[in-house]
Parts: sequence; C-alpha cells; structure tokens
Amino acid sequence: MTAGRIICAGLGPGDPDLISVRSDRVVRGARHVAYFRKPGRQGQARRIVEGMLAADAVEHAMEYPVTTELPFDSAEYNDLLSAFYDDWAGRLRDMAQAGEEVVVLCEGDPFFYGSFMHLYVRLKDAVQVDVIPGIPGMVGCWNASGQPITWGDDVLTVLMGTLPEDELVRHMQVSDALAIMKTGRNLPRVRRALETAGRLEDAWLVERGTMPNQRLVRLADVDAADCPYFAIVLVHGHGRRPVAGGEE
Amino acid sequence: MTAGRIICAGLGPGDPDLISVRSDRVVRGARHVAYFRKPGRQGQARRIVEGMLAADAVEHAMEYPVTTELPFDSAEYNDLLSAFYDDWAGRLRDMAQAGEEVVVLCEGDPFFYGSFMHLYVRLKDAVQVDVIPGIPGMVGCWNASGQPITWGDDVLTVLMGTLPEDELVRHMQVSDALAIMKTGRNLPRVRRALETAGRLEDAWLVERGTMPNQRLVRLADVDAADCPYFAIVLVHGHGRRPVAGGEE
Ligand SMILES: C[S@@+](CC[C@H](N)C(=O)[O-])C[C@H]1O[C@@H](n2cnc3c(N)ncnc32)[C@H](O)[C@@H]1O
Ligand SMILES: C[S@@+](CC[C@H](N)C(=O)[O-])C[C@H]1O[C@@H](n2cnc3c(N)ncnc32)[C@H](O)[C@@H]1O
Repeated sequence: MTAGRIICAGLGPGDPDLISVRSDRVVRGARHVAYFRKPGRQGQARRIVEGMLAADAVEHAMEYPVTTELPFDSAEYNDLLSAFYDDWAGRLRDMAQAGEEVVVLCEGDPFFYGSFMHLYVRLKDAVQVDVIPGIPGMVGCWNASGQPITWGDDVLTVLMGTLPEDELVRHMQVSDALAIMKTGRNLPRVRRALETAGRLEDAWLVERGTMPNQRLVRLADVDAADCPYFAIVLVHGHGRRPVAGGEE
Repeated sequence: MTAGRIICAGLGPGDPDLISVRSDRVVRGARHVAYFRKPGRQGQARRIVEGMLAADAVEHAMEYPVTTELPFDSAEYNDLLSAFYDDWAGRLRDMAQAGEEVVVLCEGDPFFYGSFMHLYVRLKDAVQVDVIPGIPGMVGCWNASGQPITWGDDVLTVLMGTLPEDELVRHMQVSDALAIMKTGRNLPRVRRALETAGRLEDAWLVERGTMPNQRLVRLADVDAADCPYFAIVLVHGHGRRPVAGGEE
C-alpha cells in the first residue's frame, strides 16, 4: 500500500475560472473532498466548486461547533475550537495513512488567514501535506473595483475588522492602501476608524468579489445597519507614477 | 468589423501550473501577445508562458528605455518613462481599434504594483480593457516558505525596498507580518531596517518563488554582497490560534 496524502487546494476569490490550473485538476480528480462550513450552510469553498466534483467523490463537511454563545477570547471557545481541529486532523491523518488522497478545499489562499492552517500545523509532521496557493479574496476584490490597489512605493496594510478600534485607526493613518477583511458585525467599528483616520471618503466595500452577485459600493453610502459577512473594505493607493510634465 | 480589446492576463508567481484557468485559456488562444522586458532580457512574464503560445502568435516586446544613468526621482526619468507608456498605449489602442485582441502578459497580479497599470490608465477610456487577476508573487513566496503568513488578527504590511530606511523601520515595528518586495540593490537597506526593528532573526528571503530554481534562506545568513533582483523578504505572523490548554 502506498502512503496517501492531504492536498489543500486554494480556490481563489470565488469565480471558478480564477482557480489555478493545478487546483482545478486536483479538485476534478478528487476521490475525497473535505471543507469547513458553518452548521446548516453550504460553505464558501464548497460553493466555488459546485459542478466540478466527480460523481463518486466522497464529501466530508467539517462543521464548526456552534460558538455564538461564547466570547471570542474565552477559554471555552478556545478549547472547543482546538478539540474540533484536533478531531478533524485525526480523521484526515487516518485517511491519509490508510493510503487515501484527501483534497481540502479552501477559499482564497490557504496560508493567508485560512482555517486550513489549524489542520496544517497538526498534520504536517505526521503525513504528507501539499498546499496549492490561490488568488486571495482581496485580490479578486480590488480587481472587481476596477482600480489598481498599489502603485510605485505605496505601502499596503491588511487589517482584520476584529481588531480594536484604536489599533485600526493607527494603521489606517500610516498606510497608503488598505484592505480590511472580516467585516460583518465589525463594519460599524471599521467605518468609525476610517472616519477618524480621514480615509472614509476613499473607502469602497466589495461584497462577494468575482461572484455572480458581486456588489461594489462606496462605504460612506452603505446603510449603517447593512453588515455583509463576505465583504472586504478597500482604500486604493495613488503612489508615484510617470505622467507627462511631472508626477501626478 | 467588430471592435477589438486589450486583455491583461495575470500569470501568478512563476509556476505555469499556478496560472488561473481563465488566463491559461486566454494565453494559449492569443493571436497578439505583448509584454514588458528590460533590453536584452527575456522578461519574467514571457518566461512564465514559455511553450504555451500558439505557433502563429505575434509577439510585441515592450522594451523599457535604458534608465540606469538617471536618478529614479528626476524629471528626465519621469519624462522618458511617461513617453514610453504613451507610445505603447497608443500602439495597443490602434491594434484594438483595428479589431484585434491583444493579450498583455503580467507576472503576479496586474493591479498589485504591476507595470500594466500605466497602460491601463492610458487605455481604459479609449478601448475595452479586461484584467484577469493572478496570484501575487508574495503569495507564491510564502507558500514556498512552507509556513502560513498570517493567523487570527495579524496585521500584514507590504513594503517596497525602495522606501527610505526610517519609513521601513516604522512600518516594520508596528506590523505582525511583513512582505518586502523590490529588494535587489535595496537589500542592504532592508536588512538594516529589519535589524533596527528587531525583526531580522525572523526574516526569510525567497528568490524566484515557485520557479524551478527557487531559493529559500534566512536573510541573516545571506551574504551582504548577494542582492538578488527577483526576491521577496518575508516575516511571518504568529497570531492567535486555538491550542489545547490555552493560546499559543
Ligand atoms: C477567514 S478569511 C479567509 C481568507 C482567504 N484565505 C483569502 O485568501 O482570501 C475570510 C474573509 O475573507 C474575505 N473574503 C474572502 N474572499 C472574498 C470575496 N471574494 N469577496 C469579499 N470578501 C472576501 C471576507 O472579508 C471574509 O470575512
Ligand atoms: C514590479 S513588482 C510586480 C509585482 C507583481 N505584479 C505581483 O503581483 O507580484 C516586481 C517585484 O515582485 C517581486 N516578485 C514577484 N514575483 C516573485 C517571485 N515569484 N519570487 C520572488 N519575488 C517575486 C520581486 O520583489 C520583484 O522585485
């Protein structure tokens, strides 16, 4: 029996045509497919590959434990999630050691704020794990905005909407271009921070970038009650660029 | 006669297998292919698609003017580059208006510090321009490093090695994860800045990430005279992550 392995396939921002040639091939040929999802939801990664899986592919939905009751920084939350990752890492390891190849689906790029990393650190010393990079969601979002995100020697800072407001403000003040992820319930705080930093007027909200129901709107025009989960806030840099008669 | 268009195909970090399904199709089907290169060099973008172009594809090498004599921030440098972009934008526009489809090759993602942006702003109001996103070079590089770049609510800052040393230091001090591009001749300055910020011990140099002759080495171990052009310096974040018995 030959040893199996785990392959994490980065899927890019959402449009299946933006999956890499390698991930596309691996997903279509997979016998075992695993993906994270919230209970009762299809899951973003699984949605991207709709229609691509082989008819006899076995699906393993890794359902997050329900944690809405628990504070994000509590010991209980930590223990619950840790046990969840331990459990699935064990199951995937067993499959690989039994000779199976298991493809784990991951939206965007797996090594960029991806949940797969929690399996990766638990698996990498026990079985072969191959990771296929993908186009991060933010790249699909700035493409959807129709404007380059960075020019010349612009500084780009990537922030999570979960950060404290004063930290958000500090980074927003010193960076040329911004990409702010995990907005959702954090959007009002992100918006206040942008306003304090004097950047709100230049901020865009991109929801479901590169997907059929994509939405692009100036953040200042978004209703305060509207907090889409799958969205990224962007502020474009303007950098140095050569134009006739001097720099712009 | 139907109107033509310009398609900029993002090609990803270097491995042709990491090109998106859409860019792969567009490149293989192209009748006209344009790409930037330094005089006398093949050019990074052209190298990535070696063996993929149709036998009868017409190639348009957009050769940068020689500028090594001119200071980067001089009016002469600016005027020379601006005229160069004006010239090529005009030629591509003429081809598109004559009904041709021209595919412009771009390493990584076109809207992320890509030279194509200078053509884009000159063309977008005259002819149809479609941009296909790609995996940025830095994503290929952190994948090559075998370690996730960001976890939890880590802050990631992208810096250009062309920035002044004190600005580099300031950003390096306040960010969790770092990606520093355009190293080359700037590498000694980048290294001093990392040392001042106390981050040198955690820095990696990735040269030609995802390409056959890829090199991964701790920056502190790199010879001071060794300044590879096509390289990125990475410092990984360590973020919040759930492990048994508390956070790591
Ligand atoms: C846990 S992170 C996963 C990031 C992923 N690994 C990547 O490379 O993009 C999930 C967050 O990514 C953002 N996101 C990813 N893809 C997106 C898209 N196509 N449109 C809008 N937001 C997206 C949202 O902010 C969401 O909260
Ligand atoms: C003008 S920027 C173009 C960036 C490109 N648009 C992207 O998305 O990566 C060129 C710089 O990208 C970096 N780079 C891009 N791809 C790389 C790779 N595969 N390995 C190492 N460095 C890379 C180098 O630092 C180089 O100086």
